[in-house]
Amino acid sequence: MAGSTFGELFRVTNFGESHGPAVGCVIDGCPPGLELSESDIQPELDRRRPGTSRHVTQRNEPDAVEILSGVFEGRTTGAPIALLIRNTDQRSKDYGNLLDTFRPGHADYTYWHRYGIRDPRGGGRSSARLTAPAVAAGAVARKWLAERHGIRLSGHLSQLGEIPIAFESLEHVSRNPFFAANATDIPRLEAYMDDLRRAGDSCGARIEVAAHGVPVGWGEPLYDRLDADIAHAMMGINAVKGVEIGAGFASIAQRGSVHGDELTPQGFVTNHAGGVLGGISTGQDITVSIAIKPTSSIRTPRRSITRAGEATTVSTHGRHDPCVGIRATPIAEAMLALVLIDHALRWRAQCGDVRVDTPRIAARVDPTD
Amino acid sequence: MAGSTFGELFRVTNFGESHGPAVGCVIDGCPPGLELSESDIQPELDRRRPGTSRHVTQRNEPDAVEILSGVFEGRTTGAPIALLIRNTDQRSKDYGNLLDTFRPGHADYTYWHRYGIRDPRGGGRSSARLTAPAVAAGAVARKWLAERHGIRLSGHLSQLGEIPIAFESLEHVSRNPFFAANATDIPRLEAYMDDLRRAGDSCGARIEVAAHGVPVGWGEPLYDRLDADIAHAMMGINAVKGVEIGAGFASIAQRGSVHGDELTPQGFVTNHAGGVLGGISTGQDITVSIAIKPTSSIRTPRRSITRAGEATTVSTHGRHDPCVGIRATPIAEAMLALVLIDHALRWRAQCGDVRVDTPRIAARVDPTD
Amino acid sequence: MAGSTFGELFRVTNFGESHGPAVGCVIDGCPPGLELSESDIQPELDRRRPGTSRHVTQRNEPDAVEILSGVFEGRTTGAPIALLIRNTDQRSKDYGNLLDTFRPGHADYTYWHRYGIRDPRGGGRSSARLTAPAVAAGAVARKWLAERHGIRLSGHLSQLGEIPIAFESLEHVSRNPFFAANATDIPRLEAYMDDLRRAGDSCGARIEVAAHGVPVGWGEPLYDRLDADIAHAMMGINAVKGVEIGAGFASIAQRGSVHGDELTPQGFVTNHAGGVLGGISTGQDITVSIAIKPTSSIRTPRRSITRAGEATTVSTHGRHDPCVGIRATPIAEAMLALVLIDHALRWRAQCGDVRVDTPRIAARVDPTD
Amino acid sequence: MAGSTFGELFRVTNFGESHGPAVGCVIDGCPPGLELSESDIQPELDRRRPGTSRHVTQRNEPDAVEILSGVFEGRTTGAPIALLIRNTDQRSKDYGNLLDTFRPGHADYTYWHRYGIRDPRGGGRSSARLTAPAVAAGAVARKWLAERHGIRLSGHLSQLGEIPIAFESLEHVSRNPFFAANATDIPRLEAYMDDLRRAGDSCGARIEVAAHGVPVGWGEPLYDRLDADIAHAMMGINAVKGVEIGAGFASIAQRGSVHGDELTPQGFVTNHAGGVLGGISTGQDITVSIAIKPTSSIRTPRRSITRAGEATTVSTHGRHDPCVGIRATPIAEAMLALVLIDHALRWRAQCGDVRVDTPRIAARVDPTD
Repeated sequence: MAGSTFGELFRVTNFGESHGPAVGCVIDGCPPGLELSESDIQPELDRRRPGTSRHVTQRNEPDAVEILSGVFEGRTTGAPIALLIRNTDQRSKDYGNLLDTFRPGHADYTYWHRYGIRDPRGGGRSSARLTAPAVAAGAVARKWLAERHGIRLSGHLSQLGEIPIAFESLEHVSRNPFFAANATDIPRLEAYMDDLRRAGDSCGARIEVAAHGVPVGWGEPLYDRLDADIAHAMMGINAVKGVEIGAGFASIAQRGSVHGDELTPQGFVTNHAGGVLGGISTGQDITVSIAIKPTSSIRTPRRSITRAGEATTVSTHGRHDPCVGIRATPIAEAMLALVLIDHALRWRAQCGDVRVDTPRIAARVDPTD
Repeated sequence: MAGSTFGELFRVTNFGESHGPAVGCVIDGCPPGLELSESDIQPELDRRRPGTSRHVTQRNEPDAVEILSGVFEGRTTGAPIALLIRNTDQRSKDYGNLLDTFRPGHADYTYWHRYGIRDPRGGGRSSARLTAPAVAAGAVARKWLAERHGIRLSGHLSQLGEIPIAFESLEHVSRNPFFAANATDIPRLEAYMDDLRRAGDSCGARIEVAAHGVPVGWGEPLYDRLDADIAHAMMGINAVKGVEIGAGFASIAQRGSVHGDELTPQGFVTNHAGGVLGGISTGQDITVSIAIKPTSSIRTPRRSITRAGEATTVSTHGRHDPCVGIRATPIAEAMLALVLIDHALRWRAQCGDVRVDTPRIAARVDPTD
Repeated sequence: MAGSTFGELFRVTNFGESHGPAVGCVIDGCPPGLELSESDIQPELDRRRPGTSRHVTQRNEPDAVEILSGVFEGRTTGAPIALLIRNTDQRSKDYGNLLDTFRPGHADYTYWHRYGIRDPRGGGRSSARLTAPAVAAGAVARKWLAERHGIRLSGHLSQLGEIPIAFESLEHVSRNPFFAANATDIPRLEAYMDDLRRAGDSCGARIEVAAHGVPVGWGEPLYDRLDADIAHAMMGINAVKGVEIGAGFASIAQRGSVHGDELTPQGFVTNHAGGVLGGISTGQDITVSIAIKPTSSIRTPRRSITRAGEATTVSTHGRHDPCVGIRATPIAEAMLALVLIDHALRWRAQCGDVRVDTPRIAARVDPTD
Repeated sequence: MAGSTFGELFRVTNFGESHGPAVGCVIDGCPPGLELSESDIQPELDRRRPGTSRHVTQRNEPDAVEILSGVFEGRTTGAPIALLIRNTDQRSKDYGNLLDTFRPGHADYTYWHRYGIRDPRGGGRSSARLTAPAVAAGAVARKWLAERHGIRLSGHLSQLGEIPIAFESLEHVSRNPFFAANATDIPRLEAYMDDLRRAGDSCGARIEVAAHGVPVGWGEPLYDRLDADIAHAMMGINAVKGVEIGAGFASIAQRGSVHGDELTPQGFVTNHAGGVLGGISTGQDITVSIAIKPTSSIRTPRRSITRAGEATTVSTHGRHDPCVGIRATPIAEAMLALVLIDHALRWRAQCGDVRVDTPRIAARVDPTD
C-alpha cells in the first residue's frame, strides 16, 4: 500500500511538496454533523507555522487553509474533507545545486536511490512542511474528540539539546516560543538557541504529549494496539528517533512490584503504563515522550559525496530551523489526536454496544508519583 | 480495520489464545518459489519457547508448527501459508478466580471494559504466547530476506533490570539463556534472576536488534516510513514501552554536526540514523533498541479491585516469566523481519524498475563510533 | 495487498488447497458477545458440501468445522475466530498428469504464468472447495445480522442451463437438490442433468440471492458502495461471470419514469433499485442475480497445449460437478452476508450516532411488480 | 475503512461535491519517472465533460485540471499526485427546495438516513460529476499501462434504451456524441434522444469496455480477483446496475464444451472468459459490459415523500443528462485502467521475479467468434 495515508477509519491522505504549488490532505471517514470551518483549523496551523520567532526558520508562510469539500452549511457531511494550503514563500533558487549532492542526515541519498528522481526544492516531500496537513487534520480530530468525548490534548517541550526543562505548568506553553511548560528558564533557552545559531549548528529536543479523558477500551490487543499505533504515528514525524509510552525506557530498571499500576475503588494509584494496557486504553492519561534529532541542515561544513559518487563538502545555507523540535509540539499533539479518533471509530465499529456493570475507575489518585 | 493482521503485502493474520486449542497465523502474499518446510520455522520457535531454563516460565510447550497450506512439493506457491501450533500444556485451573479481579499491570481491566467478556485462561489473547505465530511468520520472512537479498538479522539482551550487559560478541547469544552477547556476566545475571524469583518480583529488560545488508531505498517518506513501521511492530510486542532507532533518545543532546552521518566514497562514517533517513533505508545496519517492562504477574501482593468495583488484593501464582524480556530477542528479530519483507515487496511494487548510476556506498567505515 | 482477505472491519482471511491438509479461515473483527458454536456453522457447510445428490461431485467430505479461537464459554470474545476444516477425501492420483497441460477454461495456465509453480491436486487453490471457509464465515455473519438487526438471507437457483425455473416459493429450496424455489420442475431438471452427465458435458446457472430487513443507511457513496462491494463479492466466487443488482441489465431498456422507485408514506412502490441507491441501502430487499459459467472439467476432449507449448488434447475425468451453480446458492448467500456485516460495522463506526426524525418507510407496497 | 479510496497500491482518493468549490483526487503509489503534465490528463476529462452536445447536460464546465504535487520537471516523483478541478458553473439555486423531499431513484433518501445531513446542491457527493477525478486518475494509469506494457483501452456504447447499436469500428467512437462504434445509426440515436428529451423522460444504456495487451498473470485467485475488482470498479460508477465479464450472462446457457476457451500453439481459439481465468488475466482481451440505469432526474412528475414523511410529487427541472450512459464510456475505461495498474503493481510486488519457460500464447486466433 502506498504510504501517504494515515489511519484506518478516519483516514488522512497527505500530498504536496515544500516548494510545489500547495500542500494539503483529504480526510475520509469523518463522522457527519460536526460543526467545522476554517477557523477551527487555522489556530493549530498558526501554532506550527514558521517565522513566529527568531528561533525558527524565517520562511514566511501564512499557511492559510481552505476547506474544499465535505462541509455543508458549517457542518461535516460525512464526505471527504479536502484541506488545501497554498505555498506562497518558495525560494527555490536557494536550493539550486542540491541536486548534485547528498546532505548528511537528510533523505537526499535515500530518495535518490529509491525513486531515481527527487524534488530538491526545500526538501521536497521530506520537508517538515508536510506536517502542516497533519496538523490541520488533527484539528478536526481534536474538535470531535473534545465535543463527543471530552478529550483534551496537551504537549510541551521538556528538553532542548542538553537542557532539561522543568515542568511548571501547561499554561506557560502558549506564552513562550519553545512550547515549554515553564516560565523560569526561557531566557536560558533563548541564549542557548542564539549560541547555537551563531555556531551554525543545531540540536535535538524532547517533547511530551498527553491525552486526558480518553475512555477505557480503545485499542486492539495485537499489532494495531493503541500504543503501537501511537508509536507508528510519532516515529512517522520527521526527525523523530525514539518513542516512549508511560514509564518508557525507565521501566527497564523498575520492579514489577513498582511498575504495575495498582487499582483502587478511588482510582489508579500510579500511571507507569501511560494509559495503555494490553494495547487498550485504561482511562488514565495517555502519556507519550518523543526524541527529536538535531536538524541536519546546518552551516557547519560536512563531508559528503556527489551524485557521481565523488567526495565533496556540504554546507547548508538558506532558512532552516536550528531545532526542529521547537515547532514539533503541535505536530505530536495532532498525530496523537489522529490515532485516538481512529481508534474511537474502530471501537464503535466492533464494540459500540458492549455494556458492563463494572465501574470505570478514575485516573490515578496520587498525582505526586 | 480489525487489528490482528500485520503488514500490507506480506500479511500475517494472528489467531489463538493461550489456553485455547491452538495458536497460529496465516501469511498472505508470500512470494512463490521459496523452499519451505516446518524445519525452517521450528528452530526460531524453539529459541522463543518456554521451559528452556529456570529463568523463564516452566510451561512445557513443544510449540510444534504444522504448515497447513501454501506449500507444494517443498516450495511456496504464492497462496496463503497457514501455520498451526497446537496448545498442549494448558492448566486452566491455575487461573480459575481471575475472572473476578483485575491484575495490576495486566490487560484484564481494559479487555473487560472493551469486550464485556474475556478469556482469563493464561491471559487469553493478551498472553505472550501469541508472539509464537509472529516468530513463525518471521522465520519465513527472514529466509526470503536472506536468500533473495542476503539480509541477516541479529538481536541480543543489552540490559537486565538495573544491569547493563556489555556487548562482547554476537556468537555468545545462543550460548546462554538470556540472549546476551556476553560470556563474562552470565553468572551475575543468573544470580540476579534467582534473587528476583525468590523475592516474588520481576524486572524489565532492554533488547537490541539489527538488520544487516538491507539495500538502500526501502521505506516510504511519510506515515508508513520504515522507521515508523518498525516502531509500530516493536511497540506491538507485549510489554514493550519504548522504541529507539539509531541514536534514539541520545540524539536529543547531540549537535547536528555530530548526529548527521557523513558520506564518503568509502562509505558512511557513522550510523546515528540507525539505517533510516527520511523513512527510507540507507543501506547501513538498521539498529533498534526496545524497552520491556517488568512482568506484571508476580507473587508480591498488590492492591486491585473486583469486577464489582470493590477493593481486593491480588497475588499471582502459576507459571510466569520473571522477566519477559529474556525470551523477547527472537520475537523482536521476527517483527523486524516482517517489516522488512513487507517493505521489500512495497518497494518492488512501486520502484522495482528504477535504475540510477550513483554507486551505493558501504555501511559505516569507522566501526569505533 | 495480498488478496485472500475479504472485508474491512469483519475481515475473513481464507487459506487452504483442495487436496492439502485443510482449508479454513480467520475472522478478525467479529463483535464480542455473540453466542457461537460449531453447530451454528455446520448446517451452512452441509448445504454446500459435495456428495449430497447424484447431480454434484461424488467427493465425500464431511466438511466438519472446528473453532480454534475467539470463542470462550460459548460466546465470541472479539478476538480472531479461526475456523478449520480438515480435508479427508483427497485422491491426488486422479490429477497426476495435470501438471503438464492446461485445461481449457481453468486457471491452470494463468496460475502457472503468475506463480511459476502450482498445486494441481484437485485444482489446488482454484478449487470450488475454497468456498467452504467463506460459507463458514458467512454463517457467523448471518447469525449476527439476524440477532442484531433481524436480517434474513435467502437464495435460489432461477435458471439451469437453458431452463428458466419459475419462482414458486422459497420453502421448496431446501427440498430439492438444486436449491430451486420450485416443486413442479424438479423432474425436468433431474432429467436435464442426467443427460448432461451422460454427454460428458456441463452447463451454467443463474442464482438469485436477497437480503430482507437491511436497514436504510448502510454503504458508502463512492467506490466502496454497498452494490460495488456486493459485485466484488459475487464476481469473486469461482465461475461467476456476471452480477446484477435489482433490475440489472433490464434497466437499460427501462424509462426513468418506470425505473425510479416511487416513495409513498405507505412504502416504496417498486424495487428496481434492488435495495441500493447511491451506494447505500434503502431499507428494501437487497436483490442480486449472478451468472455462473459451465464447469470446465468435462469428459469431452478439448484442444490445449502442454507446458512446453505443444498441441495436445485434454479430457478431464475424476469427480466434478457438471454444474457448479447447483451448489452455489449457499455460497452466494454467505458472500452477501459478509458484505452486509462489514457495512453494518462501517456504518456504526462513522454514523452510529446519527439520528433523524424522518420515518423509515416500508419495503415496496406492490409485490406484484 | 472509509470508502472514497480506490485501489491498494495505486490508490486514488476522491473528494468534492458537485457544487462545492472543487472536485479532485490524490493518487498515491504512482511509480516514479513517468512523464506527466496536465496535457496528458485534460483530453480524457474533455471526453467526459458536459455540454458537448445537445444530448447531455448543458452545464458548462471546462473541467480544467491542475496538478498540485508529485511531479517535478515533468516527471512523477513517486510522491502523491494531487489533481484539482475547480467547479465553475454551479447554479445552486436550481436545487433550493430539494432539501425537503427525496427524488425517486436518487440517493437523497439514503444519504439523509445515513448521515443526517446532505448537500443537495447538484446532487452533492452523489453527482456524476464525481466521476471526473476518476477519469483524471485513469488518464495517469493508462499512460503508464501504455508506456510500460503496451496496453490499450477502448470502449463504446452498444445499446441506448431499447436500441442495440451494431459494432462497426472503434474509429467511429470519437466521431459521434454517443461513443458509438457505429456510423450508420447515429441519426436514429439522435432522433431517439430528441424524443426522450421532449417527453421529459430518460433511458438506460449498455457500455462495452476492453483492455488489449494485458499480460498473462495479473490478478489474485480469491476475493481480490481481477474480475472481482473490475466488478467492484464498474458497479461503483453511478447508475451502474449490472456487470459482465466475457460471455457474462450468456454463459448460463452455454455448454462447457463451448464456453471453455481452447488453447492452441497459435493462440486461444475463443475468448468467452473475457480475458480472466481463476481471477488472473489470460493475456487475451479483458472484455467487460455494463448496464446503466435511466437517469432519475426527469421532468415527469413522480410520487415521493417529504422529509416529514408526507406524500408529495416531484418533478425535476434543471440541467440533467437524459441518458447518463452517453458520457459513461470514458468513465468505464478509466475505472478499468485503475484496476489494471493496481494489479500490475500487485503482481510486481509478489511475483515480479517469476520466470517460466512456457510460451505465452496469443490472443484468440478466430476473430469471427
